[in-house]
Amino acid sequence: MESKMVQTCHGQTVTILSHQTIFPVLLFCHGFMLANTCYTDLLKHIASHGYIVVAPKFYGFLPISIPDEVQKAAQVTEWLSPSVLPEKVNPDIDNLALSGHSRGGKIAFALALGKTDQKSHKTKTSVKDNPTPLKFKAIIGVDPVAGGSVSNRPQPEILKYIPRSFDMSIPVAVIGTENGNQPLGIFPVFEFLPLNIPPCAPNGVNHSEFFNESKPPVSYFLAKDYGHCDMLDDKLDDWMTNLASHMIKSGKGSKELMRKGVGGIVVAFLKFYLGGDEKDFDAIVGDPSIAPITLDPVIYVKE
Amino acid sequence: MESKMVQTCHGQTVTILSHQTIFPVLLFCHGFMLANTCYTDLLKHIASHGYIVVAPKFYGFLPISIPDEVQKAAQVTEWLSPSVLPEKVNPDIDNLALSGHSRGGKIAFALALGKTDQKSHKTKTSVKDNPTPLKFKAIIGVDPVAGGSVSNRPQPEILKYIPRSFDMSIPVAVIGTENGNQPLGIFPVFEFLPLNIPPCAPNGVNHSEFFNESKPPVSYFLAKDYGHCDMLDDKLDDWMTNLASHMIKSGKGSKELMRKGVGGIVVAFLKFYLGGDEKDFDAIVGDPSIAPITLDPVIYVKE
Repeated sequence: MESKMVQTCHGQTVTILSHQTIFPVLLFCHGFMLANTCYTDLLKHIASHGYIVVAPKFYGFLPISIPDEVQKAAQVTEWLSPSVLPEKVNPDIDNLALSGHSRGGKIAFALALGKTDQKSHKTKTSVKDNPTPLKFKAIIGVDPVAGGSVSNRPQPEILKYIPRSFDMSIPVAVIGTENGNQPLGIFPVFEFLPLNIPPCAPNGVNHSEFFNESKPPVSYFLAKDYGHCDMLDDKLDDWMTNLASHMIKSGKGSKELMRKGVGGIVVAFLKFYLGGDEKDFDAIVGDPSIAPITLDPVIYVKE
Repeated sequence: MESKMVQTCHGQTVTILSHQTIFPVLLFCHGFMLANTCYTDLLKHIASHGYIVVAPKFYGFLPISIPDEVQKAAQVTEWLSPSVLPEKVNPDIDNLALSGHSRGGKIAFALALGKTDQKSHKTKTSVKDNPTPLKFKAIIGVDPVAGGSVSNRPQPEILKYIPRSFDMSIPVAVIGTENGNQPLGIFPVFEFLPLNIPPCAPNGVNHSEFFNESKPPVSYFLAKDYGHCDMLDDKLDDWMTNLASHMIKSGKGSKELMRKGVGGIVVAFLKFYLGGDEKDFDAIVGDPSIAPITLDPVIYVKE
């Protein structure tokens, strides 16, 4: 398996993990204040099953607005083509899926919903310039988050609080974490200066609502006893991300198993909806105990 | 059709609308600060299709706590038996359904979920004294509301923000209103003293989440262009309710049609799940345009 860092035509840094022949493509959007490199182990796991994973870095030290992130994600999607990808990285560009973690989950859903015309301050070029945008065939939200609370949702407001209201018909998988909706409480470092850290994936704007607003076919997996960032690499090289990871309620289980669990769901889902092979997906939905982590509930609404 | 006001053994006033022979029973819980008599037209509509409708009045001028309301609803359920009901009101007590509007919807779900052991200040007798409580066969939420917001939900907290987490297996119908999540804005009377009236059925604690947390079989109907209290009687005899009804965003359509629409859904649902006749229910789910109001979306998750 190869792992490459390449520059897009928009100057963004993209990590590409791939085999040598033609493979389906997964675009992955990182979470808020998390580098794309935080997901290396998870994305390598997915790529090792025969996928080209494109994980753009949307910003450096200073975050950008969500509309700007959606624009950048759209531009990376446009840029994807055999001619611009590195040598021996040959994508099956018609077999393209979309995913994202945390705020990156919202970016992914916003992009799939076509919310690329929102007010964007930083991006000069418009994604609307491209007359034939690529189509996504499936979408996966990894503990997606739409805002700080129901009443504090930044633009674009994709949630409507009406079941199955997402205006898209591609298959959806939503993976939630049980501890994502729990606050860390008082951050230990600031015992003398109480700093109450809110939950990363609050009730009302998290995985549950993303599932509720998705049209069938939609599947849902809740990772019991795990936290919002437990699918990240064990060792985070960025000090900012490292600090942030300590301000989040983690689970007690092995993060390696969590990455295998999340990666396994993603691969089974992609095999089914990009590859037409439903065997692994049916197996995990039919008997979630085969997963390396506890998934409860597991829900699959076929139609 | 008869309409009777009777006293329960707990001293509560109950409106009973019935035919003369044995019929299934529907327990209906009124909304916050709304008298049970506000629903006379809607409940008459339901009763006219062959149901005994029991609509307890949980309190007078001063509201009681939700645990106290749940206790009272449980006590009314215990009290239901042929011997205590008025002459010629003969219930088929094994064919019992539960319903409620607004906060009464939460009362109904809390009762069905067995949340009768919550802290209750006013009720002296315990519903746990009854060794053989009656079982509900189906439940209907009419624009149910679980609290003021996701972070402000009074006990018992029935919502968990996990899909299908309600621990009950009876069939569920949820009827929502499109305008229920909208604030009235500035109340006209208080133009000189701005009073911003919040929505009655806020996002995150309303119909959508009740649907999401219900296990199949569950059906969902959203009444377009109608407000949270548009299924109440046109003429409300209580001044307090009358005032409250002006502080709620209403729809523009005929309230009579709304009552017929909601009543029709309730009757079709009860015919199916209490009577075993699915014809009307299948018809409305298959073609919602047959309803006198616009229902969109209509969702039915069979299993």
